[in-house]
Amino acid sequence: MPKAVRISLDAMGGDHGPSVVIPGAALALERHPDIRFLMFGNEATLAPLLNAYPKLKEATEIRHSEIAISMDEKPSQAIRMGRGKSSMWKAVQAVRDNEADAAVSAGNTGALMATAKICLKTMAHIERPAIACMWPTLRGESIVLDVGATIGADAGHLVDMAIMGAAMARIVFDLDRPTVGLLNVGTEEIKGIETVKEAARILKESSLPNLDYRGFVEGDDLGKGTVDVVVTEGFTGNIALKTAEGTAKQIGEYLRSAMSRTLMAKIGYLFAKQAFDALKDKMDPRKVNGGVFLGLEGVVVKSHGGTDALGFASAIDVAYDMAHFELMNTIRTMLEHGPLDQPA
Amino acid sequence: MPKAVRISLDAMGGDHGPSVVIPGAALALERHPDIRFLMFGNEATLAPLLNAYPKLKEATEIRHSEIAISMDEKPSQAIRMGRGKSSMWKAVQAVRDNEADAAVSAGNTGALMATAKICLKTMAHIERPAIACMWPTLRGESIVLDVGATIGADAGHLVDMAIMGAAMARIVFDLDRPTVGLLNVGTEEIKGIETVKEAARILKESSLPNLDYRGFVEGDDLGKGTVDVVVTEGFTGNIALKTAEGTAKQIGEYLRSAMSRTLMAKIGYLFAKQAFDALKDKMDPRKVNGGVFLGLEGVVVKSHGGTDALGFASAIDVAYDMAHFELMNTIRTMLEHGPLDQPA
Repeated sequence: MPKAVRISLDAMGGDHGPSVVIPGAALALERHPDIRFLMFGNEATLAPLLNAYPKLKEATEIRHSEIAISMDEKPSQAIRMGRGKSSMWKAVQAVRDNEADAAVSAGNTGALMATAKICLKTMAHIERPAIACMWPTLRGESIVLDVGATIGADAGHLVDMAIMGAAMARIVFDLDRPTVGLLNVGTEEIKGIETVKEAARILKESSLPNLDYRGFVEGDDLGKGTVDVVVTEGFTGNIALKTAEGTAKQIGEYLRSAMSRTLMAKIGYLFAKQAFDALKDKMDPRKVNGGVFLGLEGVVVKSHGGTDALGFASAIDVAYDMAHFELMNTIRTMLEHGPLDQPA
Repeated sequence: MPKAVRISLDAMGGDHGPSVVIPGAALALERHPDIRFLMFGNEATLAPLLNAYPKLKEATEIRHSEIAISMDEKPSQAIRMGRGKSSMWKAVQAVRDNEADAAVSAGNTGALMATAKICLKTMAHIERPAIACMWPTLRGESIVLDVGATIGADAGHLVDMAIMGAAMARIVFDLDRPTVGLLNVGTEEIKGIETVKEAARILKESSLPNLDYRGFVEGDDLGKGTVDVVVTEGFTGNIALKTAEGTAKQIGEYLRSAMSRTLMAKIGYLFAKQAFDALKDKMDPRKVNGGVFLGLEGVVVKSHGGTDALGFASAIDVAYDMAHFELMNTIRTMLEHGPLDQPA
């Protein structure tokens, strides 16, 4: 029998807490029957909700926690009141204590990152964690990082991110040598920020065996899917991600309003409904939910706070893949071949 | 008789040079018959092309220039070979010499910015120019700057940009007190880059009479149109702009492919064709073509290099508005009321 994949859940995290986490977990379990859940939260709340999902109940162990970290808690406050006690902390600690292979929380990003950093610690040779997300593209999907773990990055951090992102791409896309680009304001070598240019030089000269460095990419390459992995500093990455999400919503609004303006348009919409539904499905942000924290001694996945059960299930899917295909070991192996050990 | 608006054109700039510039100018002249053009470029090329547009010919004076700056010229090279001689330089110089009220070029951004900085100089109290663009939103349009003039910005630069952007918004949107936001990774005061937080403090404390500072905005606020003016540093701004353009193209592709996949979808498309055309028109990037260089002693507008006549005409429209409604004086007046003269 194959080994179960053990996932710990912060059942109290997110805008909707257990009312989204539990049905989300049930959905994920249907897709991956080999998951075993450790669910942290208020037992009195969780137990009755779980009764509605007999299969999930069977695959889940509830661990009581009195404290839930709210969505607007400052990271420092989340640590002060949550250390060792909150459902968020305990879910992450389960990974540290090897009771779980990955943790998932829809709690606030800052608090979760602070918790993960303190509880799990960063990997050897990695100074700063990053958050990687799946980015839908015309060619399929790319991995983009950092979308908001840390503000500011020097050349070394960018190179670390390139390696970690490529490790994740190996797993997610099943590629031997994922292509990697550095986000910049132009593709010419002379352009851009010094740190980005320096990172480019290092990546080029170290010619890593498991990573195909392709140079600079620009903002519009994200949607094109020019490379498998796009690396950027967290401030810019976060703004790019939210700008793309905002633009997608905006065009969705335009489309909705165009299709309801005239009778002819409404008739056309009815004929093409299936196509519109397919498009809506393709653009559904819930399907790419799940930011992966990279660079920590353990797998933590952050779900959007406002997502629903379908979205939360996607975040669990991501955690499952990372745990099942051994993200940690892949990163470790790639770091061993990294520029740190290369002759200058 | 009202005064003519005099616009100088770099007729050799862009991917297509005069074959786009001349029909573009003809289009703009139809919309604004009070424009007078000074057209710089190779006379032997321009004169015969101009013969096809009698009205434009009447409103245009050709000035010969031997040298055209190519699209991949480095800024330093463009200055070295172009100073005083290239069609780009001469178009900008016409503004300096008060022969034109604004210059338009589709030449490469770096070369045009370098030319404009050296030839026109920056305004008093302004250290660095910025490029502002019109951003289509769900509420109409916003102004976003800097989308790529300068990489890196300190708090003072961001405040300057807020004032210059607000001046442009006064003109474009005819508002007394445009709303302004600083682009950041969160809306809470504690979040983000130090320079952005410091700029926020200055804008808040100086409470400028002609500018309604609204705090931080995020990437998805761009498409929503949360504020009239969004201020950010050039690296992030450029990436946000190109990410949005890329996302819009990507969704356009999805839509096209969805509408041609099945017979029903194709029939639906035919019924809704008018609505689709309206949508396409709304999303047409040519209609928002024209980046305004702010902070220089004169108005320079940069057109997309690869645009067509319709797009180039839009860039001329922008230059027309800026010249006609006196961008320079508006900025000067607002700078006088700026935080520079405010008690700390």
